[in-house]
Amino acid sequence: MTGPILAKDLSHHLSEEAKSRQASTLKLAFKHFSDPRIVSLGGGLPLPDLFPFNSLKVETLNPPFSRGIDVFPESSDEALEVVVAKSRAQIEHDHDIPLETALQYGSSAGNTQIVEFLREHTRIIHSPKYQDWDIVMSVGNTQAWDSTLRTFTTRGDVIFAEQFTFSSAAETVHANGVKIFPVPTDLEGIDAEAFAEILANWEGPIPKLLYTIPTGQNPTGGTMPAERRKKVYDLACKYDFIIVEDEPYYFLQMHEYKFGATAADLPPVPSHDEFLKSLVPSYLSLDTEGRVLRLDSFSKVLAPGSRLGWIVGQERLIERFLRQHEVTIQVASGFSQAILNGMLHRWGQEGYLDWLIQLRRNYTLKRNVALDAVKKYVPSEVADWIAPSAGMFFWIQLDASKHPDYEKLGRDPAAVEMQIYERGIEDGVLMIPGHWFVIEDERAAKPPSREGRQFMYFRGTFASVKPEALDKGLNIFGDLIKKEYQL
Amino acid sequence: MTGPILAKDLSHHLSEEAKSRQASTLKLAFKHFSDPRIVSLGGGLPLPDLFPFNSLKVETLNPPFSRGIDVFPESSDEALEVVVAKSRAQIEHDHDIPLETALQYGSSAGNTQIVEFLREHTRIIHSPKYQDWDIVMSVGNTQAWDSTLRTFTTRGDVIFAEQFTFSSAAETVHANGVKIFPVPTDLEGIDAEAFAEILANWEGPIPKLLYTIPTGQNPTGGTMPAERRKKVYDLACKYDFIIVEDEPYYFLQMHEYKFGATAADLPPVPSHDEFLKSLVPSYLSLDTEGRVLRLDSFSKVLAPGSRLGWIVGQERLIERFLRQHEVTIQVASGFSQAILNGMLHRWGQEGYLDWLIQLRRNYTLKRNVALDAVKKYVPSEVADWIAPSAGMFFWIQLDASKHPDYEKLGRDPAAVEMQIYERGIEDGVLMIPGHWFVIEDERAAKPPSREGRQFMYFRGTFASVKPEALDKGLNIFGDLIKKEYQL
Repeated sequence: MTGPILAKDLSHHLSEEAKSRQASTLKLAFKHFSDPRIVSLGGGLPLPDLFPFNSLKVETLNPPFSRGIDVFPESSDEALEVVVAKSRAQIEHDHDIPLETALQYGSSAGNTQIVEFLREHTRIIHSPKYQDWDIVMSVGNTQAWDSTLRTFTTRGDVIFAEQFTFSSAAETVHANGVKIFPVPTDLEGIDAEAFAEILANWEGPIPKLLYTIPTGQNPTGGTMPAERRKKVYDLACKYDFIIVEDEPYYFLQMHEYKFGATAADLPPVPSHDEFLKSLVPSYLSLDTEGRVLRLDSFSKVLAPGSRLGWIVGQERLIERFLRQHEVTIQVASGFSQAILNGMLHRWGQEGYLDWLIQLRRNYTLKRNVALDAVKKYVPSEVADWIAPSAGMFFWIQLDASKHPDYEKLGRDPAAVEMQIYERGIEDGVLMIPGHWFVIEDERAAKPPSREGRQFMYFRGTFASVKPEALDKGLNIFGDLIKKEYQL
Repeated sequence: MTGPILAKDLSHHLSEEAKSRQASTLKLAFKHFSDPRIVSLGGGLPLPDLFPFNSLKVETLNPPFSRGIDVFPESSDEALEVVVAKSRAQIEHDHDIPLETALQYGSSAGNTQIVEFLREHTRIIHSPKYQDWDIVMSVGNTQAWDSTLRTFTTRGDVIFAEQFTFSSAAETVHANGVKIFPVPTDLEGIDAEAFAEILANWEGPIPKLLYTIPTGQNPTGGTMPAERRKKVYDLACKYDFIIVEDEPYYFLQMHEYKFGATAADLPPVPSHDEFLKSLVPSYLSLDTEGRVLRLDSFSKVLAPGSRLGWIVGQERLIERFLRQHEVTIQVASGFSQAILNGMLHRWGQEGYLDWLIQLRRNYTLKRNVALDAVKKYVPSEVADWIAPSAGMFFWIQLDASKHPDYEKLGRDPAAVEMQIYERGIEDGVLMIPGHWFVIEDERAAKPPSREGRQFMYFRGTFASVKPEALDKGLNIFGDLIKKEYQL
């Protein structure tokens, strides 16, 4: 008979800072605060009677969102009013967090009601294979990532990340005094074979963390196929490192790209089961040892300003985040918690899946417009791209060595990129130069070149751009590339 | 002719981490994002059309709150509905932050509308004497303090703090690998003469920071008189350190204590001018060199769950916090910003002062009940206290060396405290043992004893306790002390 699968003890990876964190001495007294036999003169809490918020209401939409999610409700069926009352006695939904609780000091784990929703959501989407996993709330993935670095690294450490990565995530690493070793990455994410070779030849202690954006990667738009993820996960087990999957774009997984496809060509709305099966497996879902930390958030799915995210991982590590949050951010805003919780519990897990299904349709259409325009306007003689299957970005690769000014610009792809970037702005289009996302190996002399060619890249987004503007912008960009390459 | 007063350059105090922080490269492109001549495919922002929040409403109170602030509105004059719309075109108040902005990614400084309110508030309350001061938003003073430590200290550093201080603030320091040197403190705050002597005899580099809670100190409840603040500020200038004033309780400054005083005995509601003049001057208001960082928050004044605070200091230092927040917390919740901003702009600066004036009355009455009970029940033969003039706490000093079990408990005041604490819980009252707040000088062998007596302390709060419970709890505590001391 085998028992439940439990996470491995990975506490040897904790940083000096994380190891030294103590539970608050004051917390020793907390357990008595709510004991009715005791008059507590202990906690320095303001009385909720003095919170000037008697109730809170948001107007939102009602599932199943059959007309889409970017609409105003046209009937009372489509509209949903979420009213969160101040006191427990007045709440209109069993799972509401009354404002007297939401706006009071509380646990850094987050309010029970919303954490329970997130826990159930995590079970539905990822079905973690080991038993002792837990959740702690963050104020978004940027903070969750900083918090992760503090939990595991010390100044001077090295971590792994994709060779192109979100520049702000890299800046978070550098400001913590940590270096990044770039892992070879192509348009489908980390090259697992190349990574295996690097690890096999690694000298000195293996870095503790791999930071990765496996789905709809920023900047490349790439999504790691399941087999690659499995291989990288096996490497993590073999070489004992932790995988940090930063997954804001996970639910921006789109339908397949076909040139010229419109809304009418989209597949029918899937069942929840079909939807769940269509999602690429997360690292969390593969994890049997508790060596994945998943950074999740509502920023790309509901609204960035909610500043509410969550970290999933093994209990022992999550407890260390909790101790850190108690003396740093404490917890996400009570307004955010009360509002999102109120809406999500009224939607239910099923309604939230309906939202995510519609979100996918929405992003698919925008991606299609962008890719159609790339195909129409950007000359394939010098440019290369794939249709992103997730996220907000597309990534265009150009051969810098074929650019007429390549020699004049010192054979430096970054210089050619900047010339095109600046001329683009003059012409009326802004695409982000790829070298802003490049992680240089600070230990090697020079990045390796592939087949003697020097690539350059541009990142574009379709997330925040209306269809006509997407077409116009890429038309300008395509014309510029032709002009630059004298095509 | 003299020019404006400008802050001194204190960048030599910045930590390695703070010095190394770079502005985001992506930010270079931000200036073009809103240029109508350019199609921006740059920013990875979700479209606000997809935020499922069409409007947001809070029910609150209308100034001048003449029946107090812990009431439900009884007339339409007393009630205020704050409705924040999604789009700029729909907003009902000029200063509202439309949800499409509040819930989008934005500047880590905070939304202009609320920052302008806070800036004006800071001018009204503190009238900073130098010109180049600025504000950055935090997610509360706990985070602001952690952020300050990261901005100025490196593992191994030493800072100054009151010899009794908020245990969670001390834990934040310790987890950052920083040590605290305890500054002698009595019931009115830092002993400036003793501090001057310590500084005059200091060997090695002077610590960069003094952390202090000058008003309604936690745990002692003490409030530093203006003259003491001036002396400590002069020491900061002379010895070149930065004063971090953590001031959550600043507006919990109360009317004078008189035994048995009830609501009827309170002075009449003051004019705004009288109110402003009655406030103890902040360190910020004394600062001519830009060496004060003020940590402010709405937690004790409106609601802790807003998780919205702000840091005031000189521009050059505030800019370093901004760079840090960009890659950590980003900014406070957009829901919190939209709601607080909506309410505060409708109240206006005058209405907010009305709120603060009523808050003071409310706390005064609770403090009075607590102090009356202390006076009635706690035996003054062995106990000492002062009436706190600000904050949430009172602090009772007892002579441990007179306790019958003093020898038996190894002449250890902390052990006597714990015995009383535990017996208190058995009897039905919880007061927090003072040694949980003691900062031990980690450099000296033993803390100095005063006049050969060994003191112990208990912290109580009146903030969250109803009058009858306060009286009952302190009755139990007083009886316990009499029993313990065999009086």
